[in-house]
Amino acid sequence: MKRTAYIGELTPAHAGQTVTLQGWVNRRRDLGGLIFIELRDRSGLVQVQVEPDSPAFAEADLLRAEYVAEIEGTYQARPEAQRKGGAADYEVIASRVQVLNTAKTPPFELDKGAEVAEDIRLKYRYLDLRRPEMQRNLFLRSKAMTAVTEFLDAEGFIGVETPMLTKSTPEGARDFLVPSRLNPGEFYALPQSPQLFKQLLMISGFDRYYQLARCFRDEDLRADRQPDFTQLDMEMSFVTQDDVLEVQERLLAHVFRRTLGVELPTPFPRMSYRDAMDGYGSDKPDLRFGLKFTDVTELFRGGEFKAFAGAQTVKVIAAPELTRKQIDELERVAKQNGAGGLAWLKRDGDGFTGGISKFVGGIAPQLIEQTGVQPGGTLLFAAGDWKKAVNALGAVRLALRDVLDLASGGPRFHISWVVDFPQLEYDEDNARWTYMHHPFTAPHPDDLPLFGTERQGEIRAQAYDLVLNGFEIGGGSIRIHDPQVQTQMFGAIGFTPEQAHEQFGFFMDALTSGTPPHGGIAWGFDRLVMLLAGASNIREVIAFPKNNRGADLMALAPSPVDAGQLAELGVAVVEELTADPIG
Amino acid sequence: MKRTAYIGELTPAHAGQTVTLQGWVNRRRDLGGLIFIELRDRSGLVQVQVEPDSPAFAEADLLRAEYVAEIEGTYQARPEAQRKGGAADYEVIASRVQVLNTAKTPPFELDKGAEVAEDIRLKYRYLDLRRPEMQRNLFLRSKAMTAVTEFLDAEGFIGVETPMLTKSTPEGARDFLVPSRLNPGEFYALPQSPQLFKQLLMISGFDRYYQLARCFRDEDLRADRQPDFTQLDMEMSFVTQDDVLEVQERLLAHVFRRTLGVELPTPFPRMSYRDAMDGYGSDKPDLRFGLKFTDVTELFRGGEFKAFAGAQTVKVIAAPELTRKQIDELERVAKQNGAGGLAWLKRDGDGFTGGISKFVGGIAPQLIEQTGVQPGGTLLFAAGDWKKAVNALGAVRLALRDVLDLASGGPRFHISWVVDFPQLEYDEDNARWTYMHHPFTAPHPDDLPLFGTERQGEIRAQAYDLVLNGFEIGGGSIRIHDPQVQTQMFGAIGFTPEQAHEQFGFFMDALTSGTPPHGGIAWGFDRLVMLLAGASNIREVIAFPKNNRGADLMALAPSPVDAGQLAELGVAVVEELTADPIG
Repeated sequence: MKRTAYIGELTPAHAGQTVTLQGWVNRRRDLGGLIFIELRDRSGLVQVQVEPDSPAFAEADLLRAEYVAEIEGTYQARPEAQRKGGAADYEVIASRVQVLNTAKTPPFELDKGAEVAEDIRLKYRYLDLRRPEMQRNLFLRSKAMTAVTEFLDAEGFIGVETPMLTKSTPEGARDFLVPSRLNPGEFYALPQSPQLFKQLLMISGFDRYYQLARCFRDEDLRADRQPDFTQLDMEMSFVTQDDVLEVQERLLAHVFRRTLGVELPTPFPRMSYRDAMDGYGSDKPDLRFGLKFTDVTELFRGGEFKAFAGAQTVKVIAAPELTRKQIDELERVAKQNGAGGLAWLKRDGDGFTGGISKFVGGIAPQLIEQTGVQPGGTLLFAAGDWKKAVNALGAVRLALRDVLDLASGGPRFHISWVVDFPQLEYDEDNARWTYMHHPFTAPHPDDLPLFGTERQGEIRAQAYDLVLNGFEIGGGSIRIHDPQVQTQMFGAIGFTPEQAHEQFGFFMDALTSGTPPHGGIAWGFDRLVMLLAGASNIREVIAFPKNNRGADLMALAPSPVDAGQLAELGVAVVEELTADPIG
Repeated sequence: MKRTAYIGELTPAHAGQTVTLQGWVNRRRDLGGLIFIELRDRSGLVQVQVEPDSPAFAEADLLRAEYVAEIEGTYQARPEAQRKGGAADYEVIASRVQVLNTAKTPPFELDKGAEVAEDIRLKYRYLDLRRPEMQRNLFLRSKAMTAVTEFLDAEGFIGVETPMLTKSTPEGARDFLVPSRLNPGEFYALPQSPQLFKQLLMISGFDRYYQLARCFRDEDLRADRQPDFTQLDMEMSFVTQDDVLEVQERLLAHVFRRTLGVELPTPFPRMSYRDAMDGYGSDKPDLRFGLKFTDVTELFRGGEFKAFAGAQTVKVIAAPELTRKQIDELERVAKQNGAGGLAWLKRDGDGFTGGISKFVGGIAPQLIEQTGVQPGGTLLFAAGDWKKAVNALGAVRLALRDVLDLASGGPRFHISWVVDFPQLEYDEDNARWTYMHHPFTAPHPDDLPLFGTERQGEIRAQAYDLVLNGFEIGGGSIRIHDPQVQTQMFGAIGFTPEQAHEQFGFFMDALTSGTPPHGGIAWGFDRLVMLLAGASNIREVIAFPKNNRGADLMALAPSPVDAGQLAELGVAVVEELTADPIG
C-alpha cells in the first residue's frame, strides 16, 4: 500500500514527516499563486498546499472537485497565526501530486448534501455516501454489527444463516413472492423473519443462536420502514424470561459502549404493558420526559360533568401553560387518535378557567392535588373506553413532547422493557380472539387456568419489548414448548388441531419431537442504528435504501423484464393492473 | 440459568461436584435395576446413572429417546475397571431428574443418520441437525464467520449490507425475480452478487468493504450449488493485485487457525492460468498430488504416429501401473471431456507395450526420459487443439486421483492462486469476443496495446482465483477505473458506448464520478466451509438447504399460493406450464 496513513490517523507526532495520502478533492482554491487542495478520505480532511515552484504544481493544477489524487508531502503545523487547535492546525506541503482519476462535476455540492432533495441524493447515492455524515452513519452501523458478533460469539451463540427462499411464516404481513422456475406454478416466499427456523434450531439443540437476518415485508411504506430490512435475531434454550432479558441488557450495553462510548445503566427498568398504557398511553413509552397520566376516573364518577361522570376511564396530563392555539392543535391530535375531543382546564390560583372549568368547581382542590398542575398550567383530559382514552392521550403526550421539546431535557438515551403483554386480543371486527404476538408465544404459567374462560383476555404473555426513546427496538417472548399448552392456545383462538396443522404443518411435528423450553428476541437493527446515529429516518443508516414507493432510484429497480424471462418462470403480468403503473 | 455447564465443559476438576445438565436423551438402557441415560447437548455426551433407590428414579423411568431432561447429580469417575481415558471415564450419579419435554419416536435413529436417505434427513432436518456431525459442521461455519468478521474489522474493512431487492447484475446467470406490488408489471431481481454495489462503495470512498452476502442464482442445480448461497464479498481501494492477495492470504490463514488450528504457510504459491492449464489441464488444479503433464508435442511432430504428428499439442501423464479396465474407464472420462480417445503406453524395460506402442519405437528413450515414467508405469496421452487436449487430460488426471486415492498422500490442504487469466475469450458459437470474468475486470497494463489487434486473446486480466484442493473457493480482480480503458474494453467485445450505457446505465455514470483504483474478491463461503469440514457437499454445511430440485423438503417450499395473493401482485401463473409440475 502506498498510503502511509488515513488522513484521520495523522497526529502532531507526524509533524515533519513525509506522508502519502490518497483521496478525493473536497475543494480546490487558488490564492496568491498557491494551490490549496482540501483532500478527503473516509477518515477526515486535510489541507494540502502546493507552491508555485513545487514539482507537483503542474499536476495539482489539473485537480478539480471530486478528482481522485495521491499526494506526497510534508505534514507540518500551519503558521502560528492560523492555528485554532486540533487537526486543522496541520497541513501538507505537497512534493508530488498524482491525478489517479478525473470526475465529472457532481450534480450537487456534497457540502450541502443535507439540504438536497432526497430523490436526488438517492439517485446519486454513490456521491451522497461520500458525505461525512453518511460515512459516519455506515461506519457506526458496521461497528454495531461487529459489536454484536463479538459479544454473542463470546457468549456461546452460534451464527446460523436461515433460508432466504422459503415459505410464509406467521408474522401476518404480506409476503414477497419468488416464482420457481424448476417448480412451475409454485412460489417461494422471502422471509418476514426467521421465527420458525430459529425455533427449529432450538429443537435441534443449538442452544443459543443469532443472526443479522435480512427480512422482507411487502407493506405500504412509512418513514421508518423498508421492504428489505435487517433484524438481529436471537434465540436461547432452557431459559426463563429473566435469563433472556439479562443477556440482552449486557448485549445492548456492549453495543452502546463499542459504538458511542456510552455506558448504559443496567438493569433496564421494566414496566408492565398495563402500566405503560395506563401511565403513558403507549406500549413503547418515551420515558425521556414525564407527563405521566393521572387517573381521575373516580373523582369525576357521578359528578356534574356528564361526559366524564359515567366514563370507564378518565385520564389527565398536567402540562405546562399552553396557548389556545397549542390546545387546538393538541385537540386535533386527540381526535386523529380516536378521542371525541380534548377537554382542558387552565389552573388559575386555586381554581380553573377555560375549557370545562364550569363543571369542576367542586373538585378543583382534588384535581390540583392529584395532578400537581402548576399555577398557569394546563390539564388535558381523555375519557371513555380505557384503551381509546389512553391511546388518544398518549398521542397528545407525544405531541406535547414535540411542541415543547421536552425530550431534549431528558437523558440522551432512555431504555426500558415493557413486559406482561396480553396473550390474546379480542378482534372486534371479526368478533373473535386472536394472538397478540404470534401463536407460539408462551403464556404466563400462573394465568393458564384462564384459558377458555371469559377472563382469557387477562392472560399475560411471557412477551417483552425493548423500548428506546419511544421506539420499539426489539420484541420477543418465551415460546410454547409444551404441546398441551399449544393445544390450549389454539383452542383459545378457535383453531382446531387440524387447522393448526394445516397452517403450521411441519413445525407442529417438530414441536412434538423433543422441544426444549426456549425463548428469544429480535431487534429492529435499522431502527436501533438510526437512534444510535441520531438520524431522523432509517434511510440515513442504510447504504442503498428504497424510497417510499419501494423503488431504488439509482439502480432503477424494480423494472420491467423480458417476456422471455417471465415465460421461463411460467408467470405473466396481468395487463389490467399494469394500465395504471405507479412510480 | 440452571445449567452449571455444558456437558463438553466438564473436566476431571468437576469430579465430586454437583452439576446440573440439560439436554436430550441420546439413549436409555436398563441394567440390573439401574437406569443408564446417555444425555446429549450441543457439546457432548455423558452417561447418567440412576440407582433404584434414588429419588430421581421414578422420573428417570419416564425418559425415552429424544426426551428433553434436566439432570442434577454428582459428577464422578466411573469404576476403575471401566475407564479407558478421556471424558467417558466420568459419569453423573443422578439425584434429581426432570422431564422437560417428551418426544415422539424419531423417524430414524440419529446415530445412523449418515446412512439415512438424504430426502429423509432433509424432511426432518431439525432431527438431522441434532447429529454431532451436523452440529460440528454448523459450529465450524459460525466460527469461520466470526473469524472473518474479527479479522476484517481489525483491518479496517467496513461491513455493509447491500440490497436484496435489486436489479440484474452482469454475472450472466439467470436471476430470481420478485414481482413488485407497488409497481405493477415491474420486478426486482435477487442479487447474484453485490458486484456493482461493492464497486459503488469504493466510488463512495469507503476504501475497504466486506459482507457475508446472501446471493441467488436460478441455475439447474448440481451437488455443490444452491439457489440461495453465501459469498464472502470484499473490495479494496488504492490497491494493486499484490495488495489484495496479501490481505487474502492473511485472512485465510486466520480463518484456518481459528477454525481448525491449522497453520497455512504463506505466501500461497501462484501459478498463471496458462501454466495451470498447460501442466494440469485445469484452472483450479488440485495440487495435493503430482501427475503434472509433460508436453511432448515436438517429440511426435512429423513422426510416424500420424494422429500426433500434426497436432497442435500433445500432452502426457506418467501414471503408475494401470489395469486395462482402469485404462478403459479413463478413456471414457477423456471422451466425456472432449477427447477423441485416450492413447496409452505401458513401459516395459526400455520400451513400451500396448496402446500405441507400435508407433513409438524410435522415440521410446526420449519418452522415458522426458516423462520419467517408471518401469511398469503407464503413459496417458491427449492430443489436438491445445485447450481441448489439456481439458481432457485434466479430467483424466482427476479421475486418476480418485481411482488411486492420490490426494490422501498429499497435504490435507493445498492452497494456491491462479493468476493472469485471459481478459477475453473467443465465443465460437456467436463468432465474437467476450469477457472471461466480467466487463469491469482490469487488463494487465502491459497488454493494453493488444486491444483491438488480432492478438487481443493474449491480453492478461488482473484476475485471480483462490484454489483449495482442486476447488475454486474465491475469485476476483482489479477493476477498471479508467474510463479510457473501459471504452477499449467495451470496444473489444463489440459494445458501443450506447449499448454499454443501456446495459450498465447508472454504473457507467458512477465510474466517471471520481473512481479510485480498486479491486476485490469473493469467496464461495459454503464451499470453503465444506472443505474445512471435510464434507462431501455443501448441503452438509448449510442448516436448511434445498434439494437438487430447489425444494425445501421440510418447509415444503416452493408451494402454490392463493390466487388473491397473485392478483395483488399483478401476476398470473401461465397454465400450460403448470400442466406438468415437477417435484
